Amino acid sequence: MDDVVLKFLDKPKLSNPIMVEGLPGIGLVGKLAGDHLLDELKAKKFAELYSPFLPPQVGIQEDGTVKLVNMEFHSWSRNGRELILLTGDFQGITPDSQYQLAERTLDLALDLNVKRMYTLGGLATGNITQSPRVFGAATSRSLVKEHAKYDIVFREDGAIFGASGLLLGLGVQRDVEGVCLMGETHGQIVDAKSAEAVLRVLTRILGVEVDMTALENKAKDTERQMGQISKMISDHQRAEQKRGDYSWESQSYIR
Amino acid sequence: MDDVVLKFLDKPKLSNPIMVEGLPGIGLVGKLAGDHLLDELKAKKFAELYSPFLPPQVGIQEDGTVKLVNMEFHSWSRNGRELILLTGDFQGITPDSQYQLAERTLDLALDLNVKRMYTLGGLATGNITQSPRVFGAATSRSLVKEHAKYDIVFREDGAIFGASGLLLGLGVQRDVEGVCLMGETHGQIVDAKSAEAVLRVLTRILGVEVDMTALENKAKDTERQMGQISKMISDHQRAEQKRGDYSWESQSYIR
Amino acid sequence: MDDVVLKFLDKPKLSNPIMVEGLPGIGLVGKLAGDHLLDELKAKKFAELYSPFLPPQVGIQEDGTVKLVNMEFHSWSRNGRELILLTGDFQGITPDSQYQLAERTLDLALDLNVKRMYTLGGLATGNITQSPRVFGAATSRSLVKEHAKYDIVFREDGAIFGASGLLLGLGVQRDVEGVCLMGETHGQIVDAKSAEAVLRVLTRILGVEVDMTALENKAKDTERQMGQISKMISDHQRAEQKRGDYSWESQSYIR
Amino acid sequence: MDDVVLKFLDKPKLSNPIMVEGLPGIGLVGKLAGDHLLDELKAKKFAELYSPFLPPQVGIQEDGTVKLVNMEFHSWSRNGRELILLTGDFQGITPDSQYQLAERTLDLALDLNVKRMYTLGGLATGNITQSPRVFGAATSRSLVKEHAKYDIVFREDGAIFGASGLLLGLGVQRDVEGVCLMGETHGQIVDAKSAEAVLRVLTRILGVEVDMTALENKAKDTERQMGQISKMISDHQRAEQKRGDYSWESQSYIR
Repeated sequence: MDDVVLKFLDKPKLSNPIMVEGLPGIGLVGKLAGDHLLDELKAKKFAELYSPFLPPQVGIQEDGTVKLVNMEFHSWSRNGRELILLTGDFQGITPDSQYQLAERTLDLALDLNVKRMYTLGGLATGNITQSPRVFGAATSRSLVKEHAKYDIVFREDGAIFGASGLLLGLGVQRDVEGVCLMGETHGQIVDAKSAEAVLRVLTRILGVEVDMTALENKAKDTERQMGQISKMISDHQRAEQKRGDYSWESQSYIR
Repeated sequence: MDDVVLKFLDKPKLSNPIMVEGLPGIGLVGKLAGDHLLDELKAKKFAELYSPFLPPQVGIQEDGTVKLVNMEFHSWSRNGRELILLTGDFQGITPDSQYQLAERTLDLALDLNVKRMYTLGGLATGNITQSPRVFGAATSRSLVKEHAKYDIVFREDGAIFGASGLLLGLGVQRDVEGVCLMGETHGQIVDAKSAEAVLRVLTRILGVEVDMTALENKAKDTERQMGQISKMISDHQRAEQKRGDYSWESQSYIR
Repeated sequence: MDDVVLKFLDKPKLSNPIMVEGLPGIGLVGKLAGDHLLDELKAKKFAELYSPFLPPQVGIQEDGTVKLVNMEFHSWSRNGRELILLTGDFQGITPDSQYQLAERTLDLALDLNVKRMYTLGGLATGNITQSPRVFGAATSRSLVKEHAKYDIVFREDGAIFGASGLLLGLGVQRDVEGVCLMGETHGQIVDAKSAEAVLRVLTRILGVEVDMTALENKAKDTERQMGQISKMISDHQRAEQKRGDYSWESQSYIR
Repeated sequence: MDDVVLKFLDKPKLSNPIMVEGLPGIGLVGKLAGDHLLDELKAKKFAELYSPFLPPQVGIQEDGTVKLVNMEFHSWSRNGRELILLTGDFQGITPDSQYQLAERTLDLALDLNVKRMYTLGGLATGNITQSPRVFGAATSRSLVKEHAKYDIVFREDGAIFGASGLLLGLGVQRDVEGVCLMGETHGQIVDAKSAEAVLRVLTRILGVEVDMTALENKAKDTERQMGQISKMISDHQRAEQKRGDYSWESQSYIR
């Protein structure tokens, strides 16, 4: 199996689309925002990405059928505005796979004439707040300046991990500019409030309108599904510790 | 060494076999069910799979000889019914190796005209029950419907990890359909009862008959062997922690 | 993406440069010493190294822009003395990537006529001392002898991990000689004092002069940035443990 | 850098050598036995094996020079008896690298006409005994029978990890037969007594004589060196945990 398998259902013709990345991360802020944007805009899936860099698992859906974990690309256009949305179940599970997946995403983006990206995520502050701030980082000073009017806090602030960071860091080397929007979040909860804050800023930037009503419920659904899988995983781990059928990868042995 | 080495002892001619996967997993339910089916049907081994994706170890057998850990493929046919059984000591030990091994298994399955698979496993509920339920998931709604009559519980339920999930998730993309049967199990014990429940459903589906008498003893044997290896592993680990001759892979160092 | 991407901004012409490696390690001694030498000498960056072997993250800088983590090569020459400085945010994050990065560094060094290297690091003793010793190890006995006059303690002493060790161990096989200078350090603190001790020895060897005044502040800055990132990482980890969106790599699962 | 680099200093001409593997493992029994055999027989090093599958480190030797960790092959012959000895600082640090290194060792063995191997190791029982037993496992029943006279305990007994197991498991597929000799050992100590027991059996089999006097001191030396490195490693780890400059590989992050 190739490292990354891109399965095109369709190839959208776009002249100047903006790409939005909403993959799972801290507080699930990026994923919630991306999934909600997708649902509300009714964007159309045009490609699926499968990879051995994603966890080796299928989800069981409501109708009893299975779905292999993946990332999905969607397109949307109206009145000359064009968007590509990247959503997914997981990010790459090893550091180097993060790089490979980001590069392949950029290949696709460049092929579809993307020149600007917005990557969405959370920034953990340990605080629970009713009006989460939105932090930002960008690929150039002029982009920082351009976004000053949107109530985004740009400041020196540690690091951005995973796809939200790499798409910018690798993108700028390939002439794609980008901004990362990070919603302030506690860090320990699935945070619909923070996702809403990020979406409010993003939709102003993009000039699109999105109803936020369903976001709270989506957060609850997501939390429930994650909790289920989380429980299964810890069950498995306890079971394996007991029976000694263990993970070689994280263990030492004779040497 | 290649990532996957398939050693054919024989190449069975089959026109429409069903493949059954019974590799180790939660509660060893799938492995117990697969091994028991193999023994009772006296299926014939036709291929061995070796791989650096399996743990680097040999087992010591009763007669003092060693056996490199592997997976094995067996064939069986009677009265027009044809089966291929996949059994093994381990599953792939890294996430991506799970994908590679599943793809190679599908290569072999397609080459032998397999169009349907049953993958066997356990589903941990934390309960000990005398009449474990059998849960299911399938590659299509029509398969779910087709299996409704067999007392299989199909419902949204987290995820299926490893080979039992990937064979379905990757198989459906290559036109092989499949059903995963998961026996309810506590999660912390090697569970012959759960394996029996899975086998009772599977044999009804397949239209074969299997005596369950020896299953309980097989479970005890398996538990004993696993316990032995488990003890050796923890001995090694303690020893290595002490002498500082440790696993780099799971450790950090100067950087 | 290739395993190592070298981006040349310029290609210095040097006839007999000495390479100095100052990457992060124990007590950040090597990084502090390398960064300070860079700043004081005002050496000129001529190449950037990017790699999926480095962590998948970008740093957020003071002006709100992002910087992909990397290593950087700088050149400096004056009065016939020529230096190449290797600095960076991280070292390779897997054991084998350490080898690959060291080999690529040696490729570049050989290409630029480097015949001698100094690698800088810390040696943890658990003690806090006002006058840290400088320990050494070299690629040959004659080098050990040559450096005897610089108050360097050469003795049998365990191992040197990462780039500081591999550049010597792999370098000697390619006819590049080298000395590793390790500042005595507690091990648990970012240690400007130890970096200063290393730099005092190094500058005597190289015959260059460097003001140490700013080193203490640089150590504080570095500690603050590291602390920020460290906090973000532990926030992420706690969040992920809670929501079950976990690292497959370091975990076991069904098999 | 290639996955395995074999550097021949010399290529011995041997007609029917027996290979003995003595790499580090449980109780360091195999390493102690192998190193002692090497020293006493004064076997001649003819090849060095370097690999990114070994830890990225150099050892600091008594004279202040560094030595890249490696494995070494030695040859010895007298009165028609021919031996190849494999010794080393470490075994491969990932499961799959164990396979690759074992295959490469077999390539070399076959190239030098090896038809039989003895692999040496420890078997942890948790007991401290003055007269450790020697356990065995072999690639065929006839080999088990052939060795019955040497006070070797052959019995079903878990698994053999690492090179001592894989050389047999992979060797038998390439027509090299072999026996693993495992000295009974506590598991938590560097065990010269157990190494001596293994060597007494091995030398009887091989028909060579070896003085055991120096073995006890070698064990103490080995323990001291290991302890040094072990302390350095734990110092590094504590330091890194503190400063958040950590191992990505064994950690989870945003996804």
